[in-house]
Amino acid sequence: MVFDNKNNEDISLINKIANNIRGLGIDMIDNANSGHPGIVLGAANIITNLYANHLKVDLNNSNWINRDRFIMSAGHGSALLYATLFMAGYNLSLEDLKTFRKLDSIVPGHPEYGLTSGVDATTGPLGEGLATSVGVAIGESYLRSLFSDKVIDYYTYVLCGDGDLMEGISYEACSLAGKLGLNKLIVLYDSNGVTLDNKLDKSFNENIEARFTSMNWNYLLVNDSEDELALNNAINKAKESSKPTIIEVKTTIGKYSVNEGTPKVHGAPLSKEDITSIKEKLGLRDIPFTVSLDAKDYFNNLIVERNKEKITSWEEAYNSLNEENKTLLEKVINNKLPMDMGNVVYEAPEDGMDATRSVSGKVLNNIALENKLIIGGSADTASSTKSKINNTLDFDSENIGGRNINFGIRENAMAAISNGLALCGLTPFASTFLAFSDFLKPGIRLSCLMDLPVLYIFSHDSISVGEDGPTHEPIEQLVSLRATPNLDVYRPGDANEVIGAYRNILMNRKPAALILGRNKVRIEDSTNAKEVEKGAYIVKKEFDKLDAIIVATGEELELALDAYDLLIEKGYSIRVVSMPSIEVFERQDKNYQEEILGSRDKTFIVEASSSYSWYKYANQDHMFTIDTFGASGSRKDVLNKFGFTKENIAQEIEKFIK
Amino acid sequence: MVFDNKNNEDISLINKIANNIRGLGIDMIDNANSGHPGIVLGAANIITNLYANHLKVDLNNSNWINRDRFIMSAGHGSALLYATLFMAGYNLSLEDLKTFRKLDSIVPGHPEYGLTSGVDATTGPLGEGLATSVGVAIGESYLRSLFSDKVIDYYTYVLCGDGDLMEGISYEACSLAGKLGLNKLIVLYDSNGVTLDNKLDKSFNENIEARFTSMNWNYLLVNDSEDELALNNAINKAKESSKPTIIEVKTTIGKYSVNEGTPKVHGAPLSKEDITSIKEKLGLRDIPFTVSLDAKDYFNNLIVERNKEKITSWEEAYNSLNEENKTLLEKVINNKLPMDMGNVVYEAPEDGMDATRSVSGKVLNNIALENKLIIGGSADTASSTKSKINNTLDFDSENIGGRNINFGIRENAMAAISNGLALCGLTPFASTFLAFSDFLKPGIRLSCLMDLPVLYIFSHDSISVGEDGPTHEPIEQLVSLRATPNLDVYRPGDANEVIGAYRNILMNRKPAALILGRNKVRIEDSTNAKEVEKGAYIVKKEFDKLDAIIVATGEELELALDAYDLLIEKGYSIRVVSMPSIEVFERQDKNYQEEILGSRDKTFIVEASSSYSWYKYANQDHMFTIDTFGASGSRKDVLNKFGFTKENIAQEIEKFIK
Repeated sequence: MVFDNKNNEDISLINKIANNIRGLGIDMIDNANSGHPGIVLGAANIITNLYANHLKVDLNNSNWINRDRFIMSAGHGSALLYATLFMAGYNLSLEDLKTFRKLDSIVPGHPEYGLTSGVDATTGPLGEGLATSVGVAIGESYLRSLFSDKVIDYYTYVLCGDGDLMEGISYEACSLAGKLGLNKLIVLYDSNGVTLDNKLDKSFNENIEARFTSMNWNYLLVNDSEDELALNNAINKAKESSKPTIIEVKTTIGKYSVNEGTPKVHGAPLSKEDITSIKEKLGLRDIPFTVSLDAKDYFNNLIVERNKEKITSWEEAYNSLNEENKTLLEKVINNKLPMDMGNVVYEAPEDGMDATRSVSGKVLNNIALENKLIIGGSADTASSTKSKINNTLDFDSENIGGRNINFGIRENAMAAISNGLALCGLTPFASTFLAFSDFLKPGIRLSCLMDLPVLYIFSHDSISVGEDGPTHEPIEQLVSLRATPNLDVYRPGDANEVIGAYRNILMNRKPAALILGRNKVRIEDSTNAKEVEKGAYIVKKEFDKLDAIIVATGEELELALDAYDLLIEKGYSIRVVSMPSIEVFERQDKNYQEEILGSRDKTFIVEASSSYSWYKYANQDHMFTIDTFGASGSRKDVLNKFGFTKENIAQEIEKFIK
Repeated sequence: MVFDNKNNEDISLINKIANNIRGLGIDMIDNANSGHPGIVLGAANIITNLYANHLKVDLNNSNWINRDRFIMSAGHGSALLYATLFMAGYNLSLEDLKTFRKLDSIVPGHPEYGLTSGVDATTGPLGEGLATSVGVAIGESYLRSLFSDKVIDYYTYVLCGDGDLMEGISYEACSLAGKLGLNKLIVLYDSNGVTLDNKLDKSFNENIEARFTSMNWNYLLVNDSEDELALNNAINKAKESSKPTIIEVKTTIGKYSVNEGTPKVHGAPLSKEDITSIKEKLGLRDIPFTVSLDAKDYFNNLIVERNKEKITSWEEAYNSLNEENKTLLEKVINNKLPMDMGNVVYEAPEDGMDATRSVSGKVLNNIALENKLIIGGSADTASSTKSKINNTLDFDSENIGGRNINFGIRENAMAAISNGLALCGLTPFASTFLAFSDFLKPGIRLSCLMDLPVLYIFSHDSISVGEDGPTHEPIEQLVSLRATPNLDVYRPGDANEVIGAYRNILMNRKPAALILGRNKVRIEDSTNAKEVEKGAYIVKKEFDKLDAIIVATGEELELALDAYDLLIEKGYSIRVVSMPSIEVFERQDKNYQEEILGSRDKTFIVEASSSYSWYKYANQDHMFTIDTFGASGSRKDVLNKFGFTKENIAQEIEKFIK
């Protein structure tokens, strides 16, 4: 096998493919006048070797459920990934590559899941991809427990850089991966010793081997990324390991550039002279977007031939699944709900009072009985957030059918891992206190970017937490979540609305946050699970000329209804609107929206959270909201301090009506 | 020395004090009917020993600048801390302790900086306190470089638990502490093997020694927290170490309770029977809030005697400072600005164009020349956010006068470390891209809770980032920051406003976020540094009956002014308002606010960010904002896609006027 563009015959074929990928990658960056050449030139051999010799994929079906996953945690290496996918024979053309980083391209600035065939996750914010891969590896194990290792049996590979390993989330996720014994997780660490600003040792001098072995990982070192044999041996060893493995592969950032080994080559296009000189060194023709078709064919052929038998035998295994499992697997593949959400059973306590977090726990358990694709856990707050599936095991390598994940006090990793689970076709839930949703936010944003059906369960949702005080009392968190694109936020007012919220969330297959209260509230006669699908609805209708509309959510719905009682006693004609989801309400037609609200000047808001959520519907002086930090005290005292009493609300509204 | 309440004479005096602290702590929790007895009973000996035998403090001046710091990272151990402070002789009475977790108490649910004498940081969100302590330790070194080790020479002690060590931020901060060689940082790890939900080994099985040594720490083990000698030896060793030290102290959560060693004793009050039985075991009288005054006096006396000479010799050193240094130290102590902000020098480029991030870099450098209390850095984005102080060293143990901190790609730790620096009386800055402010949010919230003058510098502030695409394009971040209580957010429109923002921020001594653009914008004739102190002001006044008000911020101010030009060409009478800070504007009197805006129905918003920020001032259909994720493409194409062109804005406004 000789490639026509080589003047250096003694390097391996893999290295020749890698060099073509290098050339393509820097051409893409040059053409876009934007991008990150350092990793393209530095890590090309790692990814080439992985695709050529290891990755189990079906190029005709890039979403094959049993493919090995490859997650480019160093998402700024997008050009490297796209060039590799093109060379491997994925559904990408040279013309596509020429649109790199241009508007509406299928090869955007950072990898985007769902947009580009062969891209297994959206990455870019460092550390997140690595943590997501932990979820993908858990998902593999869990799905294997459901469908057998003939149907599900894949490795999860990650390419990460120094930056990924500095982010806190990488430690969180890797610590958990080690604890859970995720031996089919293999991290390829592009160890180049350089970051955007500096040489790495200006900010980071950990002993990586000691760090990872302290977390129950297997550590391997490859001293030169172009040493194909060493890299293959390491990957083979990793596959046999009983622990997750990190392979530290020493590379030179921007290798072959005049600025190789320096931060200069990290994130800006190379000069024309440098490109010419690099291509010269690599034996490539100095014409943009020129690749060796031989190299491409050879690469493609390696991948196809190596996987042919695996694909066939998988198809056999798939066909021999029983009907139940086949149906279930189709749900996994197509991200469908494997149950009818009409039959949620919930038994209200005799006194008609229940905290929404407690209702959520019951409903979640009820649903989980029928829906095996639900798996999740909490950041060490399951007993408080009521988010544990009863009668199942805790997930670990000994119990891969376990459905409760003890995430530990690792919020951001919990979110990213949940993204990984959803990428496998599962429906994950992740829970903690709402005040700590801040810690998860980077992961939540990625759920939304990837449009994954992750259910975030946040309890202890306001100052009515009470004694724990301001560090534990969310204020700005609700509006932060509501302002996040593509996230549906639900704050149900009572048991009926919790049930409705679950139905909506699970049927919509979108990222969602379910915001729950700590305290018992009345289950109202006037609330309704069904109405949650409209986002907002009238709970108490005015009986006469409308004097005021009170909009409330969550625990404050009870308060609003109490204030309503006081106001109608005085003869006022009041409407009470429950608005469990602003996002869902905003998707209704304008007529419906007008019917429910429609009179801004008469609208009052009752929600113990930032006003910023509500200016769309009401004026600044019509808000029973809170824009300062909370306070430590009994629930009653704290609510009273901030004006959340029925008397205060009724009285203030009365003033306005008069 | 015999305490009257002991029936067990053979335990050490320190243990007897610790037992009194235990009794008080569980009484406080019982009285509040809320709190965390597990750590009170488990870790009492650690803290007692530390205060009795090590901590350098002045009980008459709990804010003494040269005191050793103690940060209770496990903030749920507040009862333990308060009981210890009371017993030590801080300004707390038994009556105060009886108000634990009640409204307006000075001993709230979690420790709050500024509220309770002897509390050195607000803690509660796990991991944050530990990371803050890294900042306090850096601050000690830096202040030592300014004032000599006769004036500044203290240790920073931390009590942390398993939960702290699971949080990503703890790794980030400890990795940096090891890299920087912060040898005066001593972490006492309350190692009890139990978390809220479970036994620790359900979610965490790291080798702590290996983990910390991999990060260049010194690790010591004390097998029994009640072994006074072993604990003292370990702390003494730690003081002599050339590295930061973690002392793992084995404890039993809820020791002496019937539920000791289990999660049951973590976070809920104990039963009356349990309290009685514990007090029996400890030889305490079973009357709530009864302590041995002998024990209290003995403890107090130990602390006073041990520190007497240190305080005197510090006073001497302080008095022998030269005038310049004395003045500067007073600024540190009183958190005052050591310079006149009137003379900021900024030279505009000849073409009258400059990116606000670039202006910020110049202004920051100009200010840093005169203000030695400014220290900070970025999360590996200094070259992009332009937040490096020129002509100074990078901070580390060899260069403790260095003013640039290479935080590495560790955003959340960067925020918490900045909090620590501010707690030392410094004025820290911390920078990264706005999209990644999500990663810092938990630390920003604590800046705000503690009211610390931390300056967050966030550049690359909108979709006009362009090619890097949606993962790097902030949308919801601005409103998240604006909704955070006590944070002033500034988004200046050009160089003049950047200067004004710096003045305001540094003079106000409050937490602030400075939001900066990536791209060159015109320096306008009509903008004004001085007006920034009003938050918003008129940049272009209507010349006739008002047709429309355009409110803009940041890079979009230029766009708004371009649209203005198009509209006045057509004869419309338009007002343009620049609003660099909503928070500052909201603090102006109502008359001024009315004068600037005043006509909601005529107000249009131009800001390439979530609409949620703006409904207060304008209606939903008057927003040139963005509520979906961005896109990857050239700046121009991306702005065009989302309607951010002067033509589109002018045209849409014209439609409304008609």
